[in-house]
Amino acid sequence: MRVGFIGLGTMGAAMARRLVDAGHEVAVHNRTREREAPLTAAGARAAAHPAAAARGASIVVVMVSDTPNVEQVVFGSDGVAEGIEDGALLVDMSTIAPEATRGFAERVAARGARWLDAPVSGGSEGAKNGTLSIMVGGEADDLERARPLLEVLGSTITHVGPTGSGQLAKAMNQVVIAGTYAAVAEGIVLGLKAGIDVDAALRALAGGAAGSWGLIHRGPNVVRNDYPLGFRVRLHRKDLGIALDAGRSLGVPLPVAALVEQWETGLIARGHGDEDVSAIARVVREQAGLDDPEA
Amino acid sequence: MRVGFIGLGTMGAAMARRLVDAGHEVAVHNRTREREAPLTAAGARAAAHPAAAARGASIVVVMVSDTPNVEQVVFGSDGVAEGIEDGALLVDMSTIAPEATRGFAERVAARGARWLDAPVSGGSEGAKNGTLSIMVGGEADDLERARPLLEVLGSTITHVGPTGSGQLAKAMNQVVIAGTYAAVAEGIVLGLKAGIDVDAALRALAGGAAGSWGLIHRGPNVVRNDYPLGFRVRLHRKDLGIALDAGRSLGVPLPVAALVEQWETGLIARGHGDEDVSAIARVVREQAGLDDPEA
Repeated sequence: MRVGFIGLGTMGAAMARRLVDAGHEVAVHNRTREREAPLTAAGARAAAHPAAAARGASIVVVMVSDTPNVEQVVFGSDGVAEGIEDGALLVDMSTIAPEATRGFAERVAARGARWLDAPVSGGSEGAKNGTLSIMVGGEADDLERARPLLEVLGSTITHVGPTGSGQLAKAMNQVVIAGTYAAVAEGIVLGLKAGIDVDAALRALAGGAAGSWGLIHRGPNVVRNDYPLGFRVRLHRKDLGIALDAGRSLGVPLPVAALVEQWETGLIARGHGDEDVSAIARVVREQAGLDDPEA
Repeated sequence: MRVGFIGLGTMGAAMARRLVDAGHEVAVHNRTREREAPLTAAGARAAAHPAAAARGASIVVVMVSDTPNVEQVVFGSDGVAEGIEDGALLVDMSTIAPEATRGFAERVAARGARWLDAPVSGGSEGAKNGTLSIMVGGEADDLERARPLLEVLGSTITHVGPTGSGQLAKAMNQVVIAGTYAAVAEGIVLGLKAGIDVDAALRALAGGAAGSWGLIHRGPNVVRNDYPLGFRVRLHRKDLGIALDAGRSLGVPLPVAALVEQWETGLIARGHGDEDVSAIARVVREQAGLDDPEA
């Protein structure tokens, strides 16, 4: 299949590479052009701008970092919209605002092309190994067209509703992570301050109603106060911002997610934005006097 | 082994029954004496008061509902302390305050007996099937004495530290449940209000970083707004009260757990105290205007 691929960050580069290795004819573009080199070495074609990457492609994948970046690469000068073929499909795998997504889809439809929102979870490991969870909004037949390509990238592909629904499911994901990680942090800090054997307690909790991916895989970070990546605090805060905005416009108060977003704002201000999101436990530890916040 | 067993609520009755069926010589006592009948029918001996249940036993298990009840059955008139043998072991499997536990252990030690705190998680199913997770505080050699008995009741027995540590681990467990269930509620209500396919979204989330026991096993309750037991809101709030008190005395602020405790207070006031603790989602649903709180 002829594919255009815009956005070669950590996630995008790994995903584009899988498409090349799977035998697709991939034209890649990235704002910082040097990041195209490893892909062209693997067999991709470099495109000078998003429009060039879109030209001749039946599917164009966009994987950039935020709503304004999607708008820029799709509708900006030399953007995807200027090159996309009639009837082609734009698959936006970025995590952006659900409401903006619906507007973008309409503008692309006006040019005769189709839109799927298909944000992912599963991190850089998932991108490399093709084990992402892909949450898809849009028309079911458009998803069927994209499926052979999505199956190269993810092991779970879930259609959750019309345009924007994929972004909403991703927002749910980030809201649930916020509260679950906060819960893990509060529980562990209580145990640490009490001086009990927290590693043993975590083993006892893991199999029961308190068990979670976050408890099992990120609990040890909280105990050691060390937060290697993972998924960055600053990206999670960006995603929580999208979720909280969606909550405001839908009329859904999210007090726990909002609290965590505030913690993350403080962490970023203090230089912890590039740590794993489990670093929200720093706030809980510091407020309990376990660590000096200036250290 | 000769065992005394005080407290035949839903949990205690199932646990005492397992001890009888495993061949132990069990003397049972319950404040409401009629609850002893099914146990005596199974082969236990009825004891007129806690002191009588303790007399001649090498291990006395206490499984009642709160700190004052433990104090009453152990140190009240005709309490365990009046009958317990020199060198015998009192295993308190109730969920009570860690600080009070240390005081009780000292008072029992003054009478020549030993104390283990051994609260459980795993609910009535776990009690019936002997698959409880038992979190133990106390001396390691006392745990070894109790182990043959605990192995009849639980599939995971974890020593987490000195006297009171088991109660602290249980407090951790309830704090983690509070925030995890709140996270699940917030995420799901966001998706419901947006009108996406939430069941599909939950399947997409379940295997990733947002995954938890609560999401998988209680998420469907939130979608259907129906909260069958499970574990009662009123008992979880009692346990969160213990955890928040422990946090206050240790200097650990627990803002998410405190928020959930407030939600539970409102739920109990409105007649939802006997629903499963996942009913905290009612508050999130109602604040988003999904349901009429008066309905």
